Order: sequence, then structure tokens, then C-alpha cells
Amino acid sequence: MKYLSGNTRGKIFLLFFRTSSFFSKNVFLKLIGFPVRLFYNFFFQWIVGTDIYDTTSVGRCFNVYHGHSLVINKATKIGDNVIVRHNTTIGVGKKGGGSPVIGNNVEIGANVVIIGNIKIGNNVVIAAGSVVIKDVPPNSVVSGNPATFLKFLK
Amino acid sequence: MKYLSGNTRGKIFLLFFRTSSFFSKNVFLKLIGFPVRLFYNFFFQWIVGTDIYDTTSVGRCFNVYHGHSLVINKATKIGDNVIVRHNTTIGVGKKGGGSPVIGNNVEIGANVVIIGNIKIGNNVVIAAGSVVIKDVPPNSVVSGNPATFLKFLK
Amino acid sequence: MKYLSGNTRGKIFLLFFRTSSFFSKNVFLKLIGFPVRLFYNFFFQWIVGTDIYDTTSVGRCFNVYHGHSLVINKATKIGDNVIVRHNTTIGVGKKGGGSPVIGNNVEIGANVVIIGNIKIGNNVVIAAGSVVIKDVPPNSVVSGNPATFLKFLK
Repeated sequence: MKYLSGNTRGKIFLLFFRTSSFFSKNVFLKLIGFPVRLFYNFFFQWIVGTDIYDTTSVGRCFNVYHGHSLVINKATKIGDNVIVRHNTTIGVGKKGGGSPVIGNNVEIGANVVIIGNIKIGNNVVIAAGSVVIKDVPPNSVVSGNPATFLKFLK
Repeated sequence: MKYLSGNTRGKIFLLFFRTSSFFSKNVFLKLIGFPVRLFYNFFFQWIVGTDIYDTTSVGRCFNVYHGHSLVINKATKIGDNVIVRHNTTIGVGKKGGGSPVIGNNVEIGANVVIIGNIKIGNNVVIAAGSVVIKDVPPNSVVSGNPATFLKFLK
Repeated sequence: MKYLSGNTRGKIFLLFFRTSSFFSKNVFLKLIGFPVRLFYNFFFQWIVGTDIYDTTSVGRCFNVYHGHSLVINKATKIGDNVIVRHNTTIGVGKKGGGSPVIGNNVEIGANVVIIGNIKIGNNVVIAAGSVVIKDVPPNSVVSGNPATFLKFLK
């Protein structure tokens, strides 16, 4: 049944994420947008399990596929054209540590962990199931636990 | 509390999955089964997070344990007596690529990824946390990331 | 938005977990606590996906961060000051097998699998993405799939 496919669901999520983000921009907007933000927080971050703060820095053309149990720390910086999936964690490695900076055109597979004060370059593919704890150079594919260089992206 | 244990929940899921599948078989059934399928799609695929299309080809005696954040691509073919768990992804490796074909008597552990145009033989155990990206021969146990042959199943 | 952050959510979860646990202690409490336990079971174990039985043996100062798709077998024994996160499985390795015993001061990262009749010592850190299938000695950090000794905890 395709009424609400993994991709459609992602688009609905993004609609609410962008709306909720808009209402986080200043005190006045926070005041009038309170119900929207509370709904977003409860329904998406709790119930659906796509746990991304509406204040997270996310570039254009962000895509979420499925998105169950997707947890992204709010200090993470995400570039343009980034795809994320489900069962994924992007966050700090230790208390008070930094969060990843993710470049443009990055595709992240399902069941991935990306943690620590690291930098994911532009044009990168992170294979499903990878655990990324080091910088990833641009134009590359990484995989494994811990994730290692697999090949350059053609 | 065992009112709705991981296994009971799986059985309730399967009841709705099979019912929803039945109503996907032709245009007439789709018409009268619309509310059931919409409920299945919204409640199980979104809220509970057991994200399996009701049109997926699934054999007899399918079992889902827990089933949170379980995403199975609808082109996947699943044989008889297959057990799946939670935090698991079964799908395509790249856009437009094929989805796995899973044999009979296959037990899949928690937090597993199985992707690509691959074939999982009959009588196979895939250990928890495995990332399977290659064919798995019959009567074997595989584990690891990427998953490798561990032993033959006695 | 921080109305219900990953940590606040964990605290709300724990409030219900401890309350539900209290009502599981004897037949009389079970009788009057039935609605609380049913709510806990349905809302947290199904909908939110923090799937921990209220009869699980859990020490003081238990902490759950995020907690989506966190499945802990009810035979598991958890010590004091234990932190668990999301996308994590703690349970039996095979049908009828034992469940892990987890010591005090143990921090478990996201997307972790800990299975089998094993013992996790005191003062242990299990890195995100680890698959732990063997005993972990006290005062150590483990990581990888399968998880291996990384270093001693200072």
C-alpha cells in the first residue's frame, strides 16, 4: 500500500520539520508557533521516532527515507542534498564532545552511526551498517565497523 | 507485564498484515478494504514502525518478534518459516537495484541489514548485528560486518 | 525544541517504568495497577518503542537516552548507574539461552547489541555500534562487531 510510503512519510515529516524550524527563529514566532512545535516534538520525535530538533542546522533538499529511530544531535551541521534513513544515530561521541559536520551531496544508508567531532566531506556515500568515527574525505564511499575507505565515487 | 509481549505484538501485527494483504489482491477488494489498509499503513508502518508493505511476497509461518524499526522493501521475496526481529533493514543496495530473495527456515537476528540483489538460502541463521551484502549458502550461519560464513547449521 | 528532549523523554519513561514496576510486585498491586501497566505496555513498549518489561531487574539511577527501538529481554539483570540509548538490543542469543548480566556504572552507546549468557563487568563503556557476544572485564572500553577490548577506562 503506497498511501504513505517511506518517501511520502519523509516528505510529510519534512513539511512539519521545516514549519517547526520556522517557528523556532525568534521569541515572537516561538510564542505563536508553540502548538505546532509541541505537536512536532511529540508526534515525530516521540511517536514516529524521527528525533531531529527543529533547531538543527540543515541545508536545502534534505531527505528522510523511512526515518524510524533516527536520532540526530542538535549540534550537528548538515549540508545540502543530504539523505538520511532509519535506525541511524548522528551525535556526540562523549559528553560535551562535538557533533559531526556533514557536507553536501551525502547519502547515508540505514543503520548507520556517525559520532564525534568529525567532518564528512562533500559527495560521500556511507554504506548501510557503517559506524563512522573518523573524518571521511570528499568523493568517497565508506563502509564497515569502524568505517573504512572503500572506493572513490565516480 | 505480558499483556502484549514482543511475540504477542508480532502476532497482532501479522493479523493486520495478512488482512491488509488480502485486501490488496484486486481492485474490488482494494475498494472495500481501504479503511483497513489505511489503518495498517498508519498505525503499524508509521507509529509502531514495523514498515512492511502489505503487497510484499511473504511465505507461510512468517514471524515478527518485537518488530520496532523493521523496514522491508516491497520487492523483497520471503519464503516460509522466516523470523525477523527489530532494528532491521531488508532492501535495495542502490536506487533501482534489486532486493533480497530469502529462502525457507531463515532466522534473522536483531539489528541486521540485508541489502542488494542477493539470495539467502534455505535453513540459514543470520546473527544479530550482521550486515549481509552477499549471497548466503543454504544451511549456514553468518555474522559480522560485512557478514561472513561462521559455521554450518547442524 | 527542548520541551521533551531525549533526556526529558527518558525521565518520563522512567517515571512510568518505575510506577509500572511497583504495581507488578504482588497480586493485589497487579489488580489495582492494571490500567497503569496496560498504559505503560501499550504506549511505551509499542508506540514509543522502549520495550522493557516492568518486571526486569534494574538497579538505581538507571538512565535511558532517547530510547527508540530499545529492546531488553526481561531476564536481563541491570546494575546501578547504567545508561542505555536507542536502537539497542539486550537479550538471549538463542531460544532458551541466558540473558546478559550488566554490572554497575556501565554506559552503553547507541545501536548496540548485547546477547547471550554473558557478564558485563563494573565501570564499562560499550561503544556505539558494538555487537557484544562475550564477557566484558571490569574497567574497560569495548567496540566493534564482534566487540573487542579497546582500552582500559582511566
